[in-house]
Amino acid sequence: MVYPAGPSYSITVRVRIMRRPGALARVATTIGEQEALVGSIPVVKVGKDYVVRDLDVYARDEAHEQQIVNALQSLPDAEVLFVTDRTFAYHEGGKIEVRGRRELVRREDLSMAYTPGVGRISTAIAKDKEAGYVYTMKGNTVAIVTDGTAVLGLGDIGPLAALPVMEGKAMIFREFGDIYAFPLCLDVTDVDRIVDVVKAVSPGFAGINLEDISAPRCFEVERRLYDELDIPVLHDDQHGTSIAVLAALKNALIHVGKELSQIKIVVSGTGAAGVACVRILLEAGARDVLCCDRQGALFADRSEGMNPVKSELAMLTNPQGRRGTLRESLDGADVFIGVSAGNLLDPPDLKRMADDPIVFALANPIPEVDPWAALDYAEIVATGRSDFPNQINNALVFPGIFRGALDVRARKINWTMKMAAATAIAEMIPPEELAAQNILPGIFNRAVSRTVAEAVAKAALASSAA
Amino acid sequence: MVYPAGPSYSITVRVRIMRRPGALARVATTIGEQEALVGSIPVVKVGKDYVVRDLDVYARDEAHEQQIVNALQSLPDAEVLFVTDRTFAYHEGGKIEVRGRRELVRREDLSMAYTPGVGRISTAIAKDKEAGYVYTMKGNTVAIVTDGTAVLGLGDIGPLAALPVMEGKAMIFREFGDIYAFPLCLDVTDVDRIVDVVKAVSPGFAGINLEDISAPRCFEVERRLYDELDIPVLHDDQHGTSIAVLAALKNALIHVGKELSQIKIVVSGTGAAGVACVRILLEAGARDVLCCDRQGALFADRSEGMNPVKSELAMLTNPQGRRGTLRESLDGADVFIGVSAGNLLDPPDLKRMADDPIVFALANPIPEVDPWAALDYAEIVATGRSDFPNQINNALVFPGIFRGALDVRARKINWTMKMAAATAIAEMIPPEELAAQNILPGIFNRAVSRTVAEAVAKAALASSAA
Repeated sequence: MVYPAGPSYSITVRVRIMRRPGALARVATTIGEQEALVGSIPVVKVGKDYVVRDLDVYARDEAHEQQIVNALQSLPDAEVLFVTDRTFAYHEGGKIEVRGRRELVRREDLSMAYTPGVGRISTAIAKDKEAGYVYTMKGNTVAIVTDGTAVLGLGDIGPLAALPVMEGKAMIFREFGDIYAFPLCLDVTDVDRIVDVVKAVSPGFAGINLEDISAPRCFEVERRLYDELDIPVLHDDQHGTSIAVLAALKNALIHVGKELSQIKIVVSGTGAAGVACVRILLEAGARDVLCCDRQGALFADRSEGMNPVKSELAMLTNPQGRRGTLRESLDGADVFIGVSAGNLLDPPDLKRMADDPIVFALANPIPEVDPWAALDYAEIVATGRSDFPNQINNALVFPGIFRGALDVRARKINWTMKMAAATAIAEMIPPEELAAQNILPGIFNRAVSRTVAEAVAKAALASSAA
Repeated sequence: MVYPAGPSYSITVRVRIMRRPGALARVATTIGEQEALVGSIPVVKVGKDYVVRDLDVYARDEAHEQQIVNALQSLPDAEVLFVTDRTFAYHEGGKIEVRGRRELVRREDLSMAYTPGVGRISTAIAKDKEAGYVYTMKGNTVAIVTDGTAVLGLGDIGPLAALPVMEGKAMIFREFGDIYAFPLCLDVTDVDRIVDVVKAVSPGFAGINLEDISAPRCFEVERRLYDELDIPVLHDDQHGTSIAVLAALKNALIHVGKELSQIKIVVSGTGAAGVACVRILLEAGARDVLCCDRQGALFADRSEGMNPVKSELAMLTNPQGRRGTLRESLDGADVFIGVSAGNLLDPPDLKRMADDPIVFALANPIPEVDPWAALDYAEIVATGRSDFPNQINNALVFPGIFRGALDVRARKINWTMKMAAATAIAEMIPPEELAAQNILPGIFNRAVSRTVAEAVAKAALASSAA
């Protein structure tokens, strides 16, 4: 499976091009011949007989980047001056910052922001904790907590290497939820210690977003913090993903004219996202869910490769007690949900499924099945990728769900609120716009987080979580 | 001792004033009669026979604010519409925010900021931790850690009530050091647990600023983190204050023509700042320091009201083994440094001191001795207040010292670096400008933190801390 060139592997190539007819065209042709795409081409400098330009070039991977540069270097009337990797440049110095929201330019400002004036605010909060929500950042601030053990598809890369991901998440929180989110990348992996640290830092936060903590510890960490803190705690890998999946599935089923309670669903993956998907599907009314790991279907009496989480999943799922490989499990399935690993299936395997197959292949960045090829076999295909229609991305979920919880000062994010979020996202696509390649709103649709926030806030009030 | 009206108790009074000659004058006269000051008076609205104005009024305290409003309400041709406390308004919604440093408006941005592009950055950092300093916020980010047990002069008010102070500190860090500082207000007070939490969150930070943790735990917390982390750790209440004191003292001694090694110094206070002042003075060459607590001089054999920290102080100080009250300890002293509590001395007590007394009365907001009255008895008077000349404020120190340490990626902030900071601050006042009321640069002099940073960075390299 060959993926198209895209912005995550993009380079800016500064080239001096001779001012001869056709010289720029030869540069563009060369890039095209390498199967790369060209973005903007600003002029940097005009000389007597040359022009210096910056070419934004989208490649497939680092080897492809190098191949493009080599090809450009061989051109007779162009000279490569230097090459910048745009993704690395985007990250230089970090992606988020902490700054003041008020002027601090006069002595008078300092007397209010710091001593002695600030003492009055502290005194007011010491007398009445509620004032802390009004006169500090707490009410709008969420901690993004990770231990770096299950980062993207990269696994246990440690807390520092996880930081760029958490910064990206913080950007999304701010951009789509207007929430101040701050990464806390922990150097501890023991459940008790993670819980202790989060509880210790909690006074300054209105919510906790757990992120990229490996299963099964992530379940216990979330459960304990959910019980022991009175601010919302959400493990996004579980609930952000599963809520987005449920929203997408609601619309996909409308499109194919099936009912959740009548269909057969296969979930590939028993990590955080897999477990959460199974739970939310059952909660939403699904009756036939079968869950697979690397060894195939989980069933009640399976003894090999099990753990307490898988045993619980086995009890909740697979009502027919089916056995077999993932591939075999597809027989007659209406829906495939992959939250596991890349390239587990060949596109023709999807022929095993029932009519109008729905395929959510969410492994990132390489889906469980080539989504372009899968279109030949499935009615609806969705992925986590931004270069393919139907992107199932938890960025649709977490900014709005926290925004709603914070707005009504919810103590928890409960099932009612999660369900409300899924419904709100699904309903963003009006019936007349619903199509096989349009089951979810786009990430950059600003109305999504607002709508989700309103629905979640309402659900929180209705379910006494706020 | 009556303190002048100032911005920490300032109100904005919206008043509808009749358009009659002398009406505004009567409003201003009324405020003046209440011994309050008027700031800006913008026009909000002009009506047919009235003008609505916002009056910024500086008061002494909340009772004074109320008294001013009452007086205005009694005026025949003015009507008070409403009153806003400016300090509380300044704090609404908190004083700091977290936001993105890059655009996140196109799908392409998201592909770089988050998956899949960010995975490349995480992979690079997993391979080489150094990349973490280049491609994340870590290298420019400091945690401001408190447990809320010794906040300003307010004492143990808890972590949430401490948050406004930490936010103010974060604003100063950003404004003067261009450092991203984030408050962590901890719900634990046990030394081991504080140390554990700070170590656990440390991967995302380039430095730790400890703040408002009560003595003697603060010493142990700092010592352990200094030893166990390889990023700079500084307890600002100790070192920020003591470095500013040493800088001020260097210039004060030049002004009065005395030598540090020859003079007698009395320090009032055995908390974090007192201990640090004694240590830095001895480190800088002082030979006769006497330290007092509420019961008077610390001396080697004293048995009452001692603790391990005071016993150590008693051994380091008071070479003549003097006993007696704080007042008696002043006999023949060249320098008084108060880091204790308000109103411990009457101004005439200063007559006990040697010629050209130097008085640093730093208790906040009420100094150990009325500084205005003290001017009658002392050659040099300094306080922590912004409404009095010679403000000894750790804001002169911490932004620059961390900036310098971060710039050269120092692993520690050692004595050499602290001394270099004190010298750099003192040298900001050129000899021809040095005067009894001008021994320190102003807080808003932007050159201070730059100069301190350069000196500290140089000292770090010279002393192998970087």
